[in-house]
Amino acid sequence: MRIIETIGALQEHLGQCRDQGKTIALVPTMGGLHAGHLQLVDKAKTSADIVVASIFVNPTQFAPNEDLDKYPHSPEADKKGLVDRGADVLFLPSVQQIYPENQTSDYEVGEIAALLCGKSRPIHFDGVAQVVSRFFDIVEPDVAVFGEKDYQQLQIIKQLVKRQNRNISIASIEIARESDGLAMSTRNKYLSTSERMLAPHFNQALRQAKSNYESGMALDDLINKARESLGRPFELDYFEVLDANTLTQITTSSADVIIVSAVKLGITRLIDNIVFRRSNV
Amino acid sequence: MRIIETIGALQEHLGQCRDQGKTIALVPTMGGLHAGHLQLVDKAKTSADIVVASIFVNPTQFAPNEDLDKYPHSPEADKKGLVDRGADVLFLPSVQQIYPENQTSDYEVGEIAALLCGKSRPIHFDGVAQVVSRFFDIVEPDVAVFGEKDYQQLQIIKQLVKRQNRNISIASIEIARESDGLAMSTRNKYLSTSERMLAPHFNQALRQAKSNYESGMALDDLINKARESLGRPFELDYFEVLDANTLTQITTSSADVIIVSAVKLGITRLIDNIVFRRSNV
Repeated sequence: MRIIETIGALQEHLGQCRDQGKTIALVPTMGGLHAGHLQLVDKAKTSADIVVASIFVNPTQFAPNEDLDKYPHSPEADKKGLVDRGADVLFLPSVQQIYPENQTSDYEVGEIAALLCGKSRPIHFDGVAQVVSRFFDIVEPDVAVFGEKDYQQLQIIKQLVKRQNRNISIASIEIARESDGLAMSTRNKYLSTSERMLAPHFNQALRQAKSNYESGMALDDLINKARESLGRPFELDYFEVLDANTLTQITTSSADVIIVSAVKLGITRLIDNIVFRRSNV
Repeated sequence: MRIIETIGALQEHLGQCRDQGKTIALVPTMGGLHAGHLQLVDKAKTSADIVVASIFVNPTQFAPNEDLDKYPHSPEADKKGLVDRGADVLFLPSVQQIYPENQTSDYEVGEIAALLCGKSRPIHFDGVAQVVSRFFDIVEPDVAVFGEKDYQQLQIIKQLVKRQNRNISIASIEIARESDGLAMSTRNKYLSTSERMLAPHFNQALRQAKSNYESGMALDDLINKARESLGRPFELDYFEVLDANTLTQITTSSADVIIVSAVKLGITRLIDNIVFRRSNV
């Protein structure tokens, strides 16, 4: 695996690959890689000839009160994992490389950025769209691969590609989970032993809500039940049942449903979702 | 079971019992009875002829920020439990009966009231001593029975009996526990489902500390280990390893050791302890 730290060197290398007729997949990450990230690499390997993984903790998607400074990093383990899974290039740019003139976002994410996680993280998705646009400009991948845990982010990126008329296909993988159902996340490292023990309740509440939805329970009732089951020390940020394609209210024409939620458990923000086809369409 | 609400009626009834040569045991409670309380009644039955259980939520042992107003009560279940276990009298006085002139404590508990739970509940043990003195004056029992969960309270009451030269023997019973080790407490009702699931960690930390003590670990180390294992959402109030008879530092002449701790879990304050004989005396 080549480790490349500058945009110039990366573009030179990728130019050579393209000259050989090779296609390129991008797996953008913030490091602190877990098994879910490595599954992104697997997916990228099946989608293109060359896999470029990047590690860049993007400052513009963190608010001042968030965990930018202590975001977990594990560079040696990350490198080993990426080599093991067959990534071809690890791109490790500096903040200076990515934002040479301290420029702010030139892409307005719009309404979808104000929903769900956007309510409690108002600048987050502008920062995500900014850094993803920037990486798309630099890498010009044929495919980019994202996880479905960050479902709202995935929808925002799909919208961005469409609006910017980019010729990039967006691939995604299902949420990778620990054996007890907890969605894998770099931030799970923040959980205390006791919180880690409780954390699987979060996914259980989503699964219970799905089961209640499928047995015809009214939305208000199933959401209230979920709120009750996620009592202290969970602090519920949101718990919503929406059209999975629009992230708005379910209508008669909705084909897929998403049950999506965010909670705080102590200092740790957890998100999770379940997407499923409506059986009664 | 006779239910008696006035001091006059109680004293008249108990006078008749005494005239028949019967001895009297007192089981003072604040209601919200659990299996541990009912074991106090069993103990009282084996200690005297007549068992007087009382239910009185004593306002003078609650600070303004504490849970006096929402202390759990379950009068019907309490009555049924006391009848089933063979209590002879249930004494249910009003606050006006117990504190007719809004009098404050005439008994100074002294140093022992400032330790452990007394640090975070500074008026608590003065209130306990006040109400127990008052009940001793009213009931004049031969025996009074208390639980060992409130170990500091038990020591304070033993001291009070000695200082006041009362002819009352103080009996106690071991901590009654749920099957997962959690010490029974009326306040366990405050725990959320998730907190209830975690709560047994508290007793596990005490048992681990005992095991570490017995294998010779230094006190600082074993206390630090306990602090670590009781991470979020537990908030440790204190965790101490002391001479069980004096509640002060262990010395070469200490015969029994107590590991005693208080934590908060959400809004719920939990206390627990383990008392054991020093093997190396």
